[in-house]
Amino acid sequence: MSAPPVKVLLAIRVDPHQVARIAAVSPRLLVTYRPELLPAGGLTGAAPARDPADGVTSMGGASAWRDLLADAEIMLGFDWEEPGNLLRRAPRLRWVQADSAGIGEFVAAHGLVDDRLQLTTASGVHGQPISEYVLAGMLHFAKRFPDLAEWKAAREWRPYTPVELAGSEVLIIGLGAIGRAVARLCAAVGMRVTGLRRTGGPPPPGVSHILGHAELDERLPDFSFVVLAAPLTPWTHHLLDRPRIERLRRGAVVINVGRGALIDEEALVAALAGGGLGGAVLDVFEIEPLPAASPLWSLSNVVITAHSCGAVTEEPDRIVDLFIDNLGRYLSGQALRNLYQADRGY
Amino acid sequence: MSAPPVKVLLAIRVDPHQVARIAAVSPRLLVTYRPELLPAGGLTGAAPARDPADGVTSMGGASAWRDLLADAEIMLGFDWEEPGNLLRRAPRLRWVQADSAGIGEFVAAHGLVDDRLQLTTASGVHGQPISEYVLAGMLHFAKRFPDLAEWKAAREWRPYTPVELAGSEVLIIGLGAIGRAVARLCAAVGMRVTGLRRTGGPPPPGVSHILGHAELDERLPDFSFVVLAAPLTPWTHHLLDRPRIERLRRGAVVINVGRGALIDEEALVAALAGGGLGGAVLDVFEIEPLPAASPLWSLSNVVITAHSCGAVTEEPDRIVDLFIDNLGRYLSGQALRNLYQADRGY
Repeated sequence: MSAPPVKVLLAIRVDPHQVARIAAVSPRLLVTYRPELLPAGGLTGAAPARDPADGVTSMGGASAWRDLLADAEIMLGFDWEEPGNLLRRAPRLRWVQADSAGIGEFVAAHGLVDDRLQLTTASGVHGQPISEYVLAGMLHFAKRFPDLAEWKAAREWRPYTPVELAGSEVLIIGLGAIGRAVARLCAAVGMRVTGLRRTGGPPPPGVSHILGHAELDERLPDFSFVVLAAPLTPWTHHLLDRPRIERLRRGAVVINVGRGALIDEEALVAALAGGGLGGAVLDVFEIEPLPAASPLWSLSNVVITAHSCGAVTEEPDRIVDLFIDNLGRYLSGQALRNLYQADRGY
Repeated sequence: MSAPPVKVLLAIRVDPHQVARIAAVSPRLLVTYRPELLPAGGLTGAAPARDPADGVTSMGGASAWRDLLADAEIMLGFDWEEPGNLLRRAPRLRWVQADSAGIGEFVAAHGLVDDRLQLTTASGVHGQPISEYVLAGMLHFAKRFPDLAEWKAAREWRPYTPVELAGSEVLIIGLGAIGRAVARLCAAVGMRVTGLRRTGGPPPPGVSHILGHAELDERLPDFSFVVLAAPLTPWTHHLLDRPRIERLRRGAVVINVGRGALIDEEALVAALAGGGLGGAVLDVFEIEPLPAASPLWSLSNVVITAHSCGAVTEEPDRIVDLFIDNLGRYLSGQALRNLYQADRGY
């Protein structure tokens, strides 16, 4: 009698040819992909859903989806339908490969920590697109694109002197896969990169100096750009609080690709509106979706993206590559890559 | 009896401490800097002045300026007042160090070619700022900043999928100091760089392939970005003409940091308005200043800068560094760096 199949449920949209690649990892796998039961777009687990019905596009398929959950041992992506009931609805589940790097908030909000369940993050998948977004935001302000737009609207021929990025000072808070990718790109364009991280160790490539926590407040005024790429943990909550925002260099640009609550958003708005800060580039917010009443929408020196700066056309393929690698490890009993550790929150 | 002094006239604005550095090159130099006789801002020689009075801010000093010209052997910058009368007004002039890389148009328009007069360009000074501007323009469209601005104005939370720059194909037309700096930066962010140049030779750093002229038309549809960094010569005039613009890939972005007349501007406008092209990033135009009636001002997929993308705070210092190096060469009878050659036009 042969061993029972390992049931794999794909809960994110992937290209049909990728389903075949996943199934080809081992004949022991039974892979189910039912795109008609999935929400139309976007990532799951990117931020905590406030309403269990968030993202549901077809309630008609709900019972079919429930049946698939009941059998699944492995999932690619979380339960989009009732994220908080995953442990109950999927009693055989042993591993979820997430499609987001920062799942700490989501996992905590939905109580998904369980000894029988391994969670792996998509850390590393979004490094390239997010680092490009960070660079785009830096150049947007260094080359004064908001002014250019204004002069263009007035049909005003106005020679100007933009700021040079090479040689400017950037602080990157958080040196996980995303922070390290940002550091490499900033160094490649000639910026001087300082990093801040919880753990010690030598500076990763591109980082010329690691800041001690004790030095943070003193050194904050030195940087033209501050990039937040840290996970949200009790230690990082409101890491950029009002006093620190007020210590930033006049004209500095703040870029948040980590989690919204890393920054005291109200204090940030005040500094942006008052002209103390040069600008902000924000992909994440304290409340998502960003409420229509937020003053951030109306500030001309703010760039807003809807928690999607890490998305690129190639992204689902890279997540599948990671999933396939981890599937091989799972089947052979090896340790999984990007294993989420609840005690540290990432 | 000691030799008569070598009279140096500074015709661009520089920092006062730089005047002392220039004078310190040799006791034989007599350096004159009269900022009150210079126009208020901007570069000289950046584009042909259509009106001899362009840039004049103080006519009261005109006769003092004329007297200085009459004596000068060396100038940093051209005559801002009557550029076309330089040879007559400065009969002792033997060398002008320009503050622009592309002086061919200016020199031809004002008939400044003379056997007794050496001209040197500022080639190399603007490589870093211009390459950063090119990258800013690429990222502006790759990360869909025009869409982001629209959604922000509508307070619309809209997840999106931007394009990744890494791995995309860029063609750089012209591999002088600026084209090579653009190539290095594009390669540093992971783009695949193809170059086109008049002369042969191995590809410079960052360029993976040199295109033969015969292949240009066939290969044009392959590129997501086309950067023009060539000098304006009879060979490059309207190099991007209507048929070639129509061959570009749908959604491609054209970036011109060379000279306006490298592109058939009317054909470019048509392709931008019709949606065939994704966007254009233009620092130079067929007529400068760009007339208020130009349709380019009203196209949402165009970034316009007023022939100043190479300007940075550090720029005058770098021109002075080059000038000081060339002064040493001049005094010792060595060949000057960046010598302009009228027969090739740069």
